[in-house]
Amino acid sequence: MQVTMGRTAAPFAGPRRCFAHVRLAGGSPASLRAGRALRLKGDGIAGARLAVRDRAGRAAARLATPVVAVAAPEVAVKRVYNFGKGKNDGDASMKSLLGGKGANLAEMCGIGLAVPPGFTITTETCRAFHNNDRTLPEGCWEDTLAALKVVEEEMGQKFGDAANPLLLSVRSGAAVSMPGMMDTVLNLGLSDNVVEGLAAKAGGRFAYDAYRRFLDMFGNVVMGVPHELFEEQLEAMKKEKGVEFDTDLSAEDMKEVAHRYKQVYVDQGTQFPDDPYDQLRASIYAVFDSWESDRAKVYRQVAKLTGLGGTAVNVQTMAFGNMGDTSATGVLFTRNPANGDKHLYGEYLMNAQGEDVVAGIRTPLHIDDMKAEMPQMYDELVRNCDLLERHYKEMQDIEFTIQEGKLFMLQCRTGKRTGMSAVKIAVAMVDEGLITPEEAVLKVDANHLDQLLHPQFEDEAAYKDRVVATGLPASPGASVGQVVFTADDAETMKASGHDVILVRKETSPEDVKGMHSSEGVVTQLGGMTSHAAVVARGWGKTCITGCGDLQIDEGNGSCRFGNTVVNEHDWISINGTTGEVIVGKCPLKQPEMVGDLGRFMHWVDQFRTMGVYTNADTPEDAAMARENGAEGIGLCRTEHMFFATEERIKTVRKMIVAQSKEDRVKALDELLPFQRSDFEGLFTAMDGLPVTIRLLDPPLHEFLPDGDMDEVVEMLARETGGKPADIAETIERLEELNPMLGFRGCRLAITYPEIAEMQARAILEAAVNVSKKGVKVQPDIMVPLIGTSAELKNQESLVRRMAEKVFEEKGTRVDYRVGTMIEIPRAALLADQVAETAEFFSFGTNDLTQMTFGYSRDDIGKFLQVYLDKGILQVDPFQVLDEEGVGQLIKMATEKGRATRPNLKVGLCGEQGGDPASVKFVYAVGLDYVSCSPFRVPIARLAAAQASVLDKKK
Amino acid sequence: MQVTMGRTAAPFAGPRRCFAHVRLAGGSPASLRAGRALRLKGDGIAGARLAVRDRAGRAAARLATPVVAVAAPEVAVKRVYNFGKGKNDGDASMKSLLGGKGANLAEMCGIGLAVPPGFTITTETCRAFHNNDRTLPEGCWEDTLAALKVVEEEMGQKFGDAANPLLLSVRSGAAVSMPGMMDTVLNLGLSDNVVEGLAAKAGGRFAYDAYRRFLDMFGNVVMGVPHELFEEQLEAMKKEKGVEFDTDLSAEDMKEVAHRYKQVYVDQGTQFPDDPYDQLRASIYAVFDSWESDRAKVYRQVAKLTGLGGTAVNVQTMAFGNMGDTSATGVLFTRNPANGDKHLYGEYLMNAQGEDVVAGIRTPLHIDDMKAEMPQMYDELVRNCDLLERHYKEMQDIEFTIQEGKLFMLQCRTGKRTGMSAVKIAVAMVDEGLITPEEAVLKVDANHLDQLLHPQFEDEAAYKDRVVATGLPASPGASVGQVVFTADDAETMKASGHDVILVRKETSPEDVKGMHSSEGVVTQLGGMTSHAAVVARGWGKTCITGCGDLQIDEGNGSCRFGNTVVNEHDWISINGTTGEVIVGKCPLKQPEMVGDLGRFMHWVDQFRTMGVYTNADTPEDAAMARENGAEGIGLCRTEHMFFATEERIKTVRKMIVAQSKEDRVKALDELLPFQRSDFEGLFTAMDGLPVTIRLLDPPLHEFLPDGDMDEVVEMLARETGGKPADIAETIERLEELNPMLGFRGCRLAITYPEIAEMQARAILEAAVNVSKKGVKVQPDIMVPLIGTSAELKNQESLVRRMAEKVFEEKGTRVDYRVGTMIEIPRAALLADQVAETAEFFSFGTNDLTQMTFGYSRDDIGKFLQVYLDKGILQVDPFQVLDEEGVGQLIKMATEKGRATRPNLKVGLCGEQGGDPASVKFVYAVGLDYVSCSPFRVPIARLAAAQASVLDKKK
Repeated sequence: MQVTMGRTAAPFAGPRRCFAHVRLAGGSPASLRAGRALRLKGDGIAGARLAVRDRAGRAAARLATPVVAVAAPEVAVKRVYNFGKGKNDGDASMKSLLGGKGANLAEMCGIGLAVPPGFTITTETCRAFHNNDRTLPEGCWEDTLAALKVVEEEMGQKFGDAANPLLLSVRSGAAVSMPGMMDTVLNLGLSDNVVEGLAAKAGGRFAYDAYRRFLDMFGNVVMGVPHELFEEQLEAMKKEKGVEFDTDLSAEDMKEVAHRYKQVYVDQGTQFPDDPYDQLRASIYAVFDSWESDRAKVYRQVAKLTGLGGTAVNVQTMAFGNMGDTSATGVLFTRNPANGDKHLYGEYLMNAQGEDVVAGIRTPLHIDDMKAEMPQMYDELVRNCDLLERHYKEMQDIEFTIQEGKLFMLQCRTGKRTGMSAVKIAVAMVDEGLITPEEAVLKVDANHLDQLLHPQFEDEAAYKDRVVATGLPASPGASVGQVVFTADDAETMKASGHDVILVRKETSPEDVKGMHSSEGVVTQLGGMTSHAAVVARGWGKTCITGCGDLQIDEGNGSCRFGNTVVNEHDWISINGTTGEVIVGKCPLKQPEMVGDLGRFMHWVDQFRTMGVYTNADTPEDAAMARENGAEGIGLCRTEHMFFATEERIKTVRKMIVAQSKEDRVKALDELLPFQRSDFEGLFTAMDGLPVTIRLLDPPLHEFLPDGDMDEVVEMLARETGGKPADIAETIERLEELNPMLGFRGCRLAITYPEIAEMQARAILEAAVNVSKKGVKVQPDIMVPLIGTSAELKNQESLVRRMAEKVFEEKGTRVDYRVGTMIEIPRAALLADQVAETAEFFSFGTNDLTQMTFGYSRDDIGKFLQVYLDKGILQVDPFQVLDEEGVGQLIKMATEKGRATRPNLKVGLCGEQGGDPASVKFVYAVGLDYVSCSPFRVPIARLAAAQASVLDKKK
Repeated sequence: MQVTMGRTAAPFAGPRRCFAHVRLAGGSPASLRAGRALRLKGDGIAGARLAVRDRAGRAAARLATPVVAVAAPEVAVKRVYNFGKGKNDGDASMKSLLGGKGANLAEMCGIGLAVPPGFTITTETCRAFHNNDRTLPEGCWEDTLAALKVVEEEMGQKFGDAANPLLLSVRSGAAVSMPGMMDTVLNLGLSDNVVEGLAAKAGGRFAYDAYRRFLDMFGNVVMGVPHELFEEQLEAMKKEKGVEFDTDLSAEDMKEVAHRYKQVYVDQGTQFPDDPYDQLRASIYAVFDSWESDRAKVYRQVAKLTGLGGTAVNVQTMAFGNMGDTSATGVLFTRNPANGDKHLYGEYLMNAQGEDVVAGIRTPLHIDDMKAEMPQMYDELVRNCDLLERHYKEMQDIEFTIQEGKLFMLQCRTGKRTGMSAVKIAVAMVDEGLITPEEAVLKVDANHLDQLLHPQFEDEAAYKDRVVATGLPASPGASVGQVVFTADDAETMKASGHDVILVRKETSPEDVKGMHSSEGVVTQLGGMTSHAAVVARGWGKTCITGCGDLQIDEGNGSCRFGNTVVNEHDWISINGTTGEVIVGKCPLKQPEMVGDLGRFMHWVDQFRTMGVYTNADTPEDAAMARENGAEGIGLCRTEHMFFATEERIKTVRKMIVAQSKEDRVKALDELLPFQRSDFEGLFTAMDGLPVTIRLLDPPLHEFLPDGDMDEVVEMLARETGGKPADIAETIERLEELNPMLGFRGCRLAITYPEIAEMQARAILEAAVNVSKKGVKVQPDIMVPLIGTSAELKNQESLVRRMAEKVFEEKGTRVDYRVGTMIEIPRAALLADQVAETAEFFSFGTNDLTQMTFGYSRDDIGKFLQVYLDKGILQVDPFQVLDEEGVGQLIKMATEKGRATRPNLKVGLCGEQGGDPASVKFVYAVGLDYVSCSPFRVPIARLAAAQASVLDKKK
C-alpha cells in the first residue's frame, strides 16, 4: 500500500529497502526503518519523485502525515568506479552515472582494448557536491583513495612516490559531451620532489617539461592563475636562451622555467600545493566547479541540455605521447564526419601530448600519414577502430596516445557528424550489415537533417572566379550573410533580422551564442576538430576553419581575404563543403531527396506511423511541402491571403471600416472571388490530401496601416470612400490593450457572421469547383480560438448551413469536416464537450503556450534571457513544447476529446510541430499528425519515425 | 460493463431499460432493444450525459462503435399533469418539471385549499417544442385533451359547450419566476356561440365584457394584433355612448364592442378562431413562444438564470372576480416584503379580474380594508395564508379571486423581499418556532444582504426641508445619483463611472438593463407590486414608485418634482425606505450589524466553516472589513501603496527610470520607510489575524504618467533628475503589446531582485516592529504570477534570506509564511510541484479567468454583449466564477497542491470572492477561505454559511 509520494533530498540507489530520514509535510522529521516498514521506489536520483510504500499496508495509519522529503538514506552509495584491466566496475550503459567518457573507458577495457587504468567519480557526486555547498559527500574521498590504490597496483607505480611515480590526468565527462566546456588537468602528481624521480626514469628534459606543463595547467585551471603569466615566463626564457622553439630548451632551462612558474603562483598571492593528494583533491573540485561555470551553463542552455546531474571526474594514468619518436598522440573519427566516407579521418602529432593536437599549437599530420610513419601502430589503430565500430554500431570519435610503441585508447565516443554524413553512414552501415534499417533511422539526429535541407549554391561553377580564399571545409552546406566580427554583433544583427557570417581568428566557448545566431562561421585558425568546427557541425551551420588567407582588423571593422578587403556588414557567401569564401551574394538552391537521402527517407516513411502535414497558405508552399513529403495541409491561415495584393488589402480595409452590415457584406462579396481562387489553387496542389483551413484569426486592426493617426485616417478615407470621422471612430474602437486576448478568432466571426459565411462559401465553392474537374478534395474547416463549446456550435452550424446552400446552388456535394483549434486552455479543459461538435482538433501551441504560461510572445523578450540565465526556464517554451504544462493540456484534451468521439482526428499545428523533441512528445500522446513549415517536413517525418521505432522496440 | 457514453438527443425518464434509437460515432444509426441488451442511465434530460450499459457485458463486443446520441426512447413521457380536488398529479417538489406556478397549484390542491382545477404542460415539453422546430411532441395534444376531460368532469362543465361552458386561463410558469416576462390568456373558450350560453347563465353584460376582454388579450398575445387597436374601439364606443367608464356600457354595447374587436382581427389581415380548441392550441404555442422572446431572454440574462428548460403552461378553470360585489380579486404577501413586518401586505379590487390589479388601471384597495368589506372572506384568506406559511415555512406571495363569495387560491410562491425584510422574517420565524436557525440562514439571499450594507442617509432629519416629492417606498435604502430619463443613458453614464438615478413614468422589461446600471429608480406610476418595484427589490436597488408629484418632460431633458424642476444629470437623493425624493446630494452612512441583522449574522458565523478574508490595502479598509467580520487580509496589493501620495509615486518613478542597479536601490531605499509604515498599520489593524501581502504585481509602465510622450519625458526628467534620452529609452523599453501577459509579477522581481528584497524587508521589519509592541502578527508573503515552481523557489529563497537578515538585525523573529498566487493556468496544472515550496495558495481568479478563457478584461467589452445575447456565455465570467473551466483548474490545483502538502492553506482572492455562487463553489472544492472587498465580507460570510448548512443537510 502506498503511503505517500515525496521527493528524495539526496540520491540513493533505488528501488530498495533502506533506512531513511524522512521529513514530513507537517515539518517534523522522522526516522523510518525501511527494512521494517518502508520501501523507497524511484530512480535513485536526488530530487526525483519517490514513492514511500508500506509493503504490509500497516504503516499507512502510523504515518498520517505524508513524506515530503527523504534525506540521504543510510546506504553506502557507490561513488567511485574503477576501470582497467584488473578491476573494471562500469560499462557503456552507465553514461548517466559515469558520464560518456567514463562509461566508454570502462567499456573499452571490457572489450580488451589497452586503456591506461583509472577511475571515475560519478555525476551524482557532482550533484551532491553542489547541493552540499561545494563539499564532497561523506566517504567519497576515502573511496577515491581506495580506487587510486587499485590503479597503483595495476601500474606498479605509486602516486607521489619519487621512486616510481604514478602521474594522472583529471578530466571532466558528463553524460552528454560538452566539448571544451569543462576543465582538464594533466601530469598531475608532480612536485619538486617527485619530478626528480621522473627525471631519473624518463630523462630531465621530459620530466621538467611535464612539470612546467602541469604547473601551468594546474595554475590556470585549478588556482585561477592566468595562463598568459606562465606563457610570458616561457617566452622570456626562450629569449634569454636565444631559441625559437620550446623544444630547444634544455632540461636545466625547463627546470628553471618550472621554478619561475612556481614564483608566478606566489606573485598571484597563492601557492602551488606540493602534496599530490592536495593537487588531486583540488583538481576534482575544479572539475566539479567547472560544471557550474557560466560558459558551461550557457552551453547547456544553447544546446538545450536539460536534466543532467553533473559531470563525472575521470582520473586516469597518464599516457605520454611525448616520449620521443616512438610516441605520438592523435584524434580521429572512424569515418568522415563531414561527408560520411568510410575512411579514418583525423590528425596526429608525433612526440606530443594530446592537448597539443586540439590546441592547434603545432600543425598536426593527417592520420593517413601514420600508415607510412608508424605502420604497425596504424594497423593496430585501424583494427581497434573496426572493433569499436562493430561493438558500438556507431561511427566513433577516438583519442589515442602511443607511448614508446604502445598504443593506448584514451577515449571513444559516438562521433559528431553533419547531417549529410549521418545519412551516408547510416545507409552504409545497413549495406555493411552492421545495422538494420530501423536502427539506421535512429542514427540521424532529426535536427541535423536541416543541414541537408539548407540551400546549396545554385551554380557552383558560376562563382569560382569570385573565390577570394579557401579554408578547411569544416561543416558543409552553403550560406550567405553579412560579415560580423564579434559574437555580440552576430546576436544583435540576427535579432534585427539580418543573416550574418561570423568571421573570427578562432572561436572560444564565449562565442557559442553568437555562432548560434550566424548562418555560418569562418575562422583563420584551427583545424577540422577545432572548437569552431565541432560546434558548427553539431548545429549544422556552415563552417570554414583554418582559412590562412584571412586577416582580421577588428579595430578598423574590416578583414582581408587574400588581397580583398571586406568590411563589416559586407555580404559574403561561404561553401562549407569546399571551404571556399566568395565575395558578395551567391544564389542558393534547395537540395533534393535523392541517393542516400532518398533511401533513408524511404525507410523513414516505412516505419513512421504518425502523419506529417504542413502549414502552408499558397499553392507554391503547398507544392514544395508535398515534395518534402507533407501528407496534407494542417494549417492554412486564410488571413495571409488578405495581404497578398494591394487590391485585396484595400478591400479588407473597406470591410473593416464598413459602418453597416450591408457595406460589410458588399466588401466581403468583393473578397470572395479572391479567396475562392486561392482555395482552388490549394486544393489542386494537395489533390487527394486533406487541407485544413482556419477561418479568420487575427484582430481586425492588424489589417490597418501603421503610422500617424491622421494620415492613416486620411489614407483609409481615400482608399475606402468612408467618412474620416467614421474611420477614426472605427480605428479607436478596434484598439486593444491586450490584442492577444482580444477581439479575434471566432469572436470576430460570431460578432460578424458574414465574415465566416464568406469564408465558408469560398472554401466550399472552391472545393466543389475543383472536384468537378476531377481533383479529390478533403476540406477540413477549422474554427480558431474557441474557449467554449457554444462558440464552436455556433460556427459549425453556420458552416453547415452555408455548405448546404452551396451544394444546392452547385448541384454537387463534397465531403468536408468541421473542427477546431485547441489553443485556449479552457478549450483543452472542456475538450469532452468540444468534441461533441468538433470532428477534429488541432493544437495551436503558439497561443496555448502564451495562455498557459501567461507569456506574450511579443513581450517575453523582456525577461526570457534572465529566466534562461537563472535556470527558471531551461528553454524557450515557444521553441520547444513545454511538456509538463502545455503538454499536460494537450494530453488531457486528446483523452477527453476521444472519450467523447473515439475517432476524433487530433493534430498539432504550432511552431513546435517541426521540433523533433515536441514531435516525439505528441507521438507518445497519440496525436494523428503534426503540421510544420514546408521546410521542416522531412525533420518532422524523421522525428516521427524515430518515435515509432523506439516505441516498437519497447 | 459500460459500453460507452453518449448524450441523449431527447428526454427520457431514466434510469430505465428501454428501446432506443442510437446514433453511433461512426455515423450509422442502429436500433437496440434495450430490454434485451442495454440500460440507459442518466437524469433523463435531453442533452444530458448518458451511459449506455450492457448489463451482461456481452453487447460491448457487438457495439464496437460508441454511441454518441440516443434519440427519443420509445417510452410514453408524461407531459400533462392534472391538478384539482379529484386528480392531482404533481406537488411542490416538481418545480423544474411543472414550473413554480404549476407545482404550487398542485401542492395547494394537495393540502386542501380551494383551487380552480386545471392542468400543467411540462417545461420539458417547451424544450422539446423549441428543439423540434416549434412543434408539440407526439401525443402531447392528445394528453392535453385527456387532461381537459378530467377538468370538465370535476367542474361539471364542458369546454366550448354553449349550454354549460368551461372557460379557461392559460398562463406561463417557469421553474423560476420571471414576472411579466411571458404571456397569459384569460377567458379562453368563448366564441360568438359560446358567449350566448354564458350570457344566459351569468348575464349579458358579464358575458360580453368577458368576451371582448378575451378577444383583446387573445388578439394581442396570440395573434400579434396591437392592444391599442382594441382600446381605440372601446374608447370610440364610450364616446358614442357618452359614458366615462367601461362599466357604464350595457350588455348590448359590449356585444357591439366584441363585434368590432373581431373586425379588428380582419383589418389586421387575420381572423379570430371560433373553435375553442384552436384557441387553446394557439395559446399554448404562444406561451411556449414567449419563452424565447427577446425580453424573456434579456431577463434571464440579467437575472443570471441559466439551465432552465423552458416554461410550463398552466391551463386552469377561470375564476371570476368580476361577478358583482360578492366577487373580488387580489394579490398579497403574507408579510411585508419591504421591512418584514408580520402583517398581510397587498391590494385587492372588488368586482374585477386579476389582471386589473397588476395593470394599475383601477387603484386597488389595501388588503386591510377587506376586513371591513368582506370579513368572512378576509378571515378565510388569513387562515389560508397562515396555513401556507406553516406548510412552506416561507413568506408567500399569493393571488386569489373571490367568485360570488367563494375564495379561490390562484397562485402561491415564495415572496420576493428586500434584504432587510428577509433578515427580519428569518429571525421572526425562528422566534415563532417555524424554522431553526440553520434554516433561517438559508432564507436570506446572500446578494440581498447587500441592501442592508448599502449606505443610508447620515442624518435623515437634516434633509427633511429639501424633500420635493414622496412616493411609495418600494425598495429600501438610500442612494444618490444624477438624474437620467432613459435606460440607455443610465447604461452609458454608468459605464463612464457616474452614479445615476433612473427617473421614469413607469418601467417595462425593456428597461431592466438600465435599471441594473442605476443606483436607484423613481417612477411616476405603479404600486408596490409594479414592475419597477419587483425588479428593484430583487436586485436590492433603492426604488420609489407611484410618485404622483413627478412629471417628466423627456423632450426637454427635465422633470418636475412638484414645483421643483430637475434637469438631466442634476443630482438627487432618494430614500427607498420612506419614499422621499430630495434635491441635491445627501451624505450617506454605513449601516451597522445590530438588532435582527446582528442575531442573524451571529447564526451565520456559528454555522460557517470556511474563512472569509478581505482584500484591503490600507489600515482604514482593513478596520472596516474587520467590523464586517473579516478574519484576515487575503490580498494586500502593495502597489496600491505606491500611488498613495505624490511623493511616493515620484520615488517609484525614480526607481523605474534608474539606469543602474545602484540608482534603483537608492530609490527603493527611499520607498522602504513608506512601505514599512503601511505594513505596520495593516498588521496593527489586523492584530491577531493573518495578513497576506502580495509582492509587486503590475507592469512598471503602469506607474508612469499618461499623455504626450515628450511631456511625459520632460516631466519625469524634472521629477527624477534623469536624462531625457535615458527616460525616453526606458519608456520605450517598457512598452508592451500585451501587458497582461508581459513583464509583471514575479517576472519583475526575478529580473530586479532588489525590488522584492525591499518589499520583503519592509514587511518583515514592520512585522518585527509591531510585534515588539505586543501586536500579534501573521504575515503571509505572496508571490504573484508564477507559472513555474522555479519562479516561486527563486522568490521564496530571496524572502527567506531577507527574513534571516532582518531577524538578525532586529534580534527578534516572527513566524511568517511564503506562498503564491495561482493565477496562471500552468501554475494550476503543476500545483503539485508548486506546493513543494508554497505554504499557501491563493487563487487570483481575475488573471486565471483571463488566461483560461484567453479574454482580456480590458477588451472583452468588444464581444461580451454579443456573446451574452447569443447565449455563448450565460454570464460575464469576470463576475461569476466559471465553474466548468476556471473552476476545474481551481479544483485540480487544490487537489494536486494538497497531495504534496496536505496542510496547504488554500484561498481565493479574485473579484468573485464576494459572489455567493462562486463562494459556494469553492466551498465545495474545499478551500480554506475566500477574500473579497470589505463591503462584501458579510455577503461572503452568509454564502459560506449557507454552503456549510446545505452540506450538513446532505
